[in-house]
Amino acid sequence: MVTVAVIEGDGIGPEVVGATLKVLEKIRETFKLPLEFVFVEAGDRAKEKYGEALPKESYERLLRADAILKGPVGETAADVIVRLRRELDLFANIRPAKVLPGVPALKENVDLIIVRENIEDLYVGAENLLPQTSLGHKVAVGLRLASERETRRVAKVAAEYAKARRNKVTIVHKANVMRVTCGLFRDVAKEVLEAEGVEVDEMYVDAAAMELVRRPERFDVMLTPNVFGDILSDLAAQVVGSLGLAPSGNIGEERALFEPVHGAAFDIAGKGIANPTATMLAASMMLEWLERKKGLPKGAEAAAALQRAIEKALSEGVKTPDLGGNYGTFEFAEEVVKRLQLP
Amino acid sequence: MVTVAVIEGDGIGPEVVGATLKVLEKIRETFKLPLEFVFVEAGDRAKEKYGEALPKESYERLLRADAILKGPVGETAADVIVRLRRELDLFANIRPAKVLPGVPALKENVDLIIVRENIEDLYVGAENLLPQTSLGHKVAVGLRLASERETRRVAKVAAEYAKARRNKVTIVHKANVMRVTCGLFRDVAKEVLEAEGVEVDEMYVDAAAMELVRRPERFDVMLTPNVFGDILSDLAAQVVGSLGLAPSGNIGEERALFEPVHGAAFDIAGKGIANPTATMLAASMMLEWLERKKGLPKGAEAAAALQRAIEKALSEGVKTPDLGGNYGTFEFAEEVVKRLQLP
Ligand SMILES: CC(C)[C@H](C(=O)O)[C@@H](O)C(=O)O
Ligand SMILES: CC(C)[C@H](C(=O)O)[C@@H](O)C(=O)O
Repeated sequence: MVTVAVIEGDGIGPEVVGATLKVLEKIRETFKLPLEFVFVEAGDRAKEKYGEALPKESYERLLRADAILKGPVGETAADVIVRLRRELDLFANIRPAKVLPGVPALKENVDLIIVRENIEDLYVGAENLLPQTSLGHKVAVGLRLASERETRRVAKVAAEYAKARRNKVTIVHKANVMRVTCGLFRDVAKEVLEAEGVEVDEMYVDAAAMELVRRPERFDVMLTPNVFGDILSDLAAQVVGSLGLAPSGNIGEERALFEPVHGAAFDIAGKGIANPTATMLAASMMLEWLERKKGLPKGAEAAAALQRAIEKALSEGVKTPDLGGNYGTFEFAEEVVKRLQLP
Repeated sequence: MVTVAVIEGDGIGPEVVGATLKVLEKIRETFKLPLEFVFVEAGDRAKEKYGEALPKESYERLLRADAILKGPVGETAADVIVRLRRELDLFANIRPAKVLPGVPALKENVDLIIVRENIEDLYVGAENLLPQTSLGHKVAVGLRLASERETRRVAKVAAEYAKARRNKVTIVHKANVMRVTCGLFRDVAKEVLEAEGVEVDEMYVDAAAMELVRRPERFDVMLTPNVFGDILSDLAAQVVGSLGLAPSGNIGEERALFEPVHGAAFDIAGKGIANPTATMLAASMMLEWLERKKGLPKGAEAAAALQRAIEKALSEGVKTPDLGGNYGTFEFAEEVVKRLQLP
């Protein structure tokens, strides 16, 4: 039995996760997947209830699961996700940005993946106020970390993805200014990618932000440090249509957590109108990963079927209000279920 | 006499600066401005000739000038501009992004200014490789700096601009992750802006990147730390049409340096086709500043006339090839000159 821990999250979280579980249950039945779901509390509501956004018991359940499916978390988002990435060693964040059929995008023909380093950079949380003695005003410093070992690992992941695609990786950095940290990232990544036989180019992060609007179809895989990846992946999601469609996979050696890129959207929570597509696509990434890493039989097949069903629904005009449609969150899920087919 | 030091720069630099000087000479004559230009060598060619991108003599000339007009620099860009920002204490970088008439933009009605903190953050250049003794692999760290004094100064500048506009500043940060450094920036900026009677809101940088594509017209002034400002300003330039149109002013208490946001574009250098608009708009910002800070008579009037002439040319279809036209760099300058009028 393969166990998926489910964090419902806050705001629209329970709705988009609930709709995704509806679809996953149907998939489990159709493909006879030996898959079980365990609910785990984390986020704003856990904090209210237990005083901690990620209580010890929740954390231990997550450790025991084969994979984690997570909805968006509210105020305590960073307490949950930044900690999980670090402690579960989920060192690569895979963020695909692909134009979906029937969804108006800024540019057509975009199909790229951002591979974001996921545990170093300014996300290590090593920050301090300096003692004020002689300074006369508050001065804060934070540490940016870049290591060879981590860069090597994440560059290998980028190479793997590139090989299954157009075999091209763009290293995005700012080594003209951060000469040592970005310099290390750039040099080590380049060495790994070239050794793997992947076509490499590089771009400064400011130029990359511009190119994501100007000519995003030029990118295949983008490999980038944590902070730049955070910014560029929201941008890329908007370029291919909407943050409501962007899934992500936080991947480690033996563990992984899948989640939508978007946040808890409290303004529309509880209305039944949130778009569950990002979470469903994250679930599809999860099924594929579960076959590859945990031996879930037919995982990849189920993942592809889910992806196709979502695309079919969208291309036939089945859309939530954010995309100009009038399907509710669960109606959308039902329509996806109707379109699930064995290959 | 007011003295402007001119750095021609590399690649297309001499062309876009040359074309801008043609226009400035005409303006000087028309408005009888007591303005002189002094050429100063800096950049890749200075490095080749003297072994230094910013030779001592050049630096001293820049110190003596009332303002600096700078073209794009090539490989040595950071050696020149990052050093000048720091040593001349040019602590605020003003980057307007406004849709120009006749130029196709991603979104209409965009008229925003990014006020980028310009000397702290990871730009302090405090980076090191750790001693490798026990680590077994290369580990690099860099320092991110945020101080109260600097944040206060740059927030005041943002307030000044906002008051002359729609009185609204959006603080862009990532205080959910960089709690101490971005936390300080956010808190101090908010305090200053509220005390100045400006309407304040705030946004995470990843969301801001997305919003710059989705709904850029919602922004008036964006106030942001150095690295985020670097990324967002290239993005904003693309959103309003092209990096070829984006000017910037690096502003200190008594000194200032004006430059295009774009780089040296070696691929089209020497062909006479580069778009000089960004540099001309930077020159317009300079004239306005020179009246305000150095008492240049009619500076603001001349600045407005230059801006109008550029907009008139563009709206009448006078465009360089990057905008789909067939005017050369200097032909464009001539057309701008023809449209210069006393108010
Ligand atoms: C919630 C936040 C800490 C997180 C991040 O910055 O990584 C989010 O923006 C993301 O991109 O997953
Ligand atoms: C050339 C480079 C050092 C510079 C920067 O990063 O500030 C440039 O990108 C800019 O935005 O002015």
